[in-house]
Amino acid sequence: MSRTTQTAFVTLTSALSLCVALWQPAYGQTAATERHQVNATTVAEGLNFPWGLAFLPNGDALITEKSGSLRRVSPNGAISAPIKGVPDVVYKSQGGLLDVAIDPNFADTPWVYLSYAEADPAGGDGNSTAVARGKLNGNALTDVTVIFRGAPKYKSGAHFGSRLVFSPQGHLFITLGDRYSAMDDAQTLDNHHGKVVRIWPDGSIPKDNPFVRDDGALDAIWSYGHRNVQGAAIHPETGALWTVEHGPKGGDEINIPEAGKNYGWPIATYGVDYDGSVISDQTHAEGTVQPHYYWVPSIATSNMIFYTGDMFPAWQGDALIAALKGAKVARLDLDGERVMHEESLFAELIQQRIRDIAQGPDGAIYLITDDRNGRFIRITNAAE
Amino acid sequence: MSRTTQTAFVTLTSALSLCVALWQPAYGQTAATERHQVNATTVAEGLNFPWGLAFLPNGDALITEKSGSLRRVSPNGAISAPIKGVPDVVYKSQGGLLDVAIDPNFADTPWVYLSYAEADPAGGDGNSTAVARGKLNGNALTDVTVIFRGAPKYKSGAHFGSRLVFSPQGHLFITLGDRYSAMDDAQTLDNHHGKVVRIWPDGSIPKDNPFVRDDGALDAIWSYGHRNVQGAAIHPETGALWTVEHGPKGGDEINIPEAGKNYGWPIATYGVDYDGSVISDQTHAEGTVQPHYYWVPSIATSNMIFYTGDMFPAWQGDALIAALKGAKVARLDLDGERVMHEESLFAELIQQRIRDIAQGPDGAIYLITDDRNGRFIRITNAAE
Ligand SMILES: [Ca+2]
Ligand SMILES: [Ca+2]
Ligand SMILES: [Ca+2]
Ligand SMILES: [Ca+2]
Repeated sequence: MSRTTQTAFVTLTSALSLCVALWQPAYGQTAATERHQVNATTVAEGLNFPWGLAFLPNGDALITEKSGSLRRVSPNGAISAPIKGVPDVVYKSQGGLLDVAIDPNFADTPWVYLSYAEADPAGGDGNSTAVARGKLNGNALTDVTVIFRGAPKYKSGAHFGSRLVFSPQGHLFITLGDRYSAMDDAQTLDNHHGKVVRIWPDGSIPKDNPFVRDDGALDAIWSYGHRNVQGAAIHPETGALWTVEHGPKGGDEINIPEAGKNYGWPIATYGVDYDGSVISDQTHAEGTVQPHYYWVPSIATSNMIFYTGDMFPAWQGDALIAALKGAKVARLDLDGERVMHEESLFAELIQQRIRDIAQGPDGAIYLITDDRNGRFIRITNAAE
Repeated sequence: MSRTTQTAFVTLTSALSLCVALWQPAYGQTAATERHQVNATTVAEGLNFPWGLAFLPNGDALITEKSGSLRRVSPNGAISAPIKGVPDVVYKSQGGLLDVAIDPNFADTPWVYLSYAEADPAGGDGNSTAVARGKLNGNALTDVTVIFRGAPKYKSGAHFGSRLVFSPQGHLFITLGDRYSAMDDAQTLDNHHGKVVRIWPDGSIPKDNPFVRDDGALDAIWSYGHRNVQGAAIHPETGALWTVEHGPKGGDEINIPEAGKNYGWPIATYGVDYDGSVISDQTHAEGTVQPHYYWVPSIATSNMIFYTGDMFPAWQGDALIAALKGAKVARLDLDGERVMHEESLFAELIQQRIRDIAQGPDGAIYLITDDRNGRFIRITNAAE
């Protein structure tokens, strides 16, 4: 942080306590944090339970709405009509149109990836997380193909996981959920419940996936023993996948999933079930990996990023974890992989559950909120 | 944690919320924590600003009072008359009789070590942290010798540091403070301000101390760039020294001080000065080591332990850091050295600043409180 920035920070603090004391739903509000003074601006509102957010190279954002629409939102807040060609989704409870990701080589071929709750193509009453991709041409997706289909189809409206992130080598990681009532499946490898999977963007299986030579295990599986992994990001220095998953009541976790490893759910957890009953009395279990970091009580982690922009120099390299509960972003000040400190950001500015977080091409931080009148919010440095 | 313990924990939670809601200064109160149900019992009270606490092999505790008395307290709470032979102390502001430690070979030779603010033997008006040892015989110390004398003598009532811990190899670590107005001295090696020092118990200098061959540096120095290190413990698995130091306003730190390294104060810090002014605009500085973990805002760390007892199975291997502010103990759930989670313990039970923490021979956790009517408190497992 420059001397100028720090001085401004200190000078503004007292003036801002007034501001914060009189808070209202934020349209251009300012708040103090430990290292930066920030502004929150609502870029667009009226989004219907937006779930996923990704930036196009031209600076537009693609935003999913859970009911099944994919929209383009320009930096000035103009919201497009629904983009055509999006697959049908099961819009029920936690299911619907979920995450969106842009191909790393979008300039060559404009693939857009969508995760969603998919009905059983055979007509059964089950559903599962699926991933499709299509080429974005104007306001339509063309050549739409399903590249991943979670197995089995299962009758539940809960725990779809669904974040999409690309590894530096071009693999696509898809994070999944345990479908709640099927939680025990997270410990067996003949299904995708409670797994992180790794595929190539065309849906083929990387030959070095950990279970490709195991006949009893599904080939896409990367790691297992997860509960409901709704957040994922690639560490900018190590290139490793980091995930955040919802615990039951308490026990939200960050993990750094490694090939073939077991992250413990439901045999080891730091949480209890929603009704307070005990799922497991174990926080540790043989053959399972401890979380890298965890929260008790839960903050209800949605997605995470590693901040790498120039706009907030003091946050470079830090993990920012969006939370549904408390409408906040948890900043983990990292030294490499080590968590040195946790700070709670933006809660007084947002006042709605935060469903996704992204770093914009401008280095600002963007949030979408989980609400019938969902907002698309830009967080900028008030000292710039 | 056994299944029995966990079940008891869950069952008692609702009954206990009533208890907690009606809190009063605690004499035999119970509280819920994430993993254990605990009782707090006041073993003894009426201690005059107790500062240091150490257990003798027979189960008695030695407790210092800042005004200059060392007392023996039995497990049933009987407080002895002041033990004779304690050196004169400068009892002023933060200075006085400070820590107490027992020789690892106490059964052979009953050495007791005391740190304290010592006047200038040459008659000047400065003072510094000194350490003396004496043999405990009944209610007196004999053969009392000063084994360490901080340099220079300096006119200040602040930042004496003063924790005493033995390494597994038998070295004595003494943690020191920057004397506040001499903070810049923490970056130079011709003085003991803002240092951790390492000596043998007889006061001699270990030959492998990092600066013994450096003529411009004092030979006792182990690490530097500290502010006011009032807490220290040896990690039970690695054998490494861990310390906690007070930040200015924000920026309390845990460090794992290694030989010859610079921990940054006052050129790099996560805090600002008490009046909100900027001491350094840097959290990072070339050649300095980042904290292992830090707190903003400050919790005012006093001492720390690693819990290794049987009474609280879920806390084994965790760091417990006592705090003056908030009258609490911060539990850092550790996986090896890695902090996975922080929990705030005991605040509703204590209601006084906590000055020292120790694990008793019975596996219970003992606290002393920084008060004119200071208390000696035993924390036990309510499920046992
Ligand atoms: Ca886990
Ligand atoms: Ca940082
Ligand atoms: Ca430091
Ligand atoms: Ca633990």
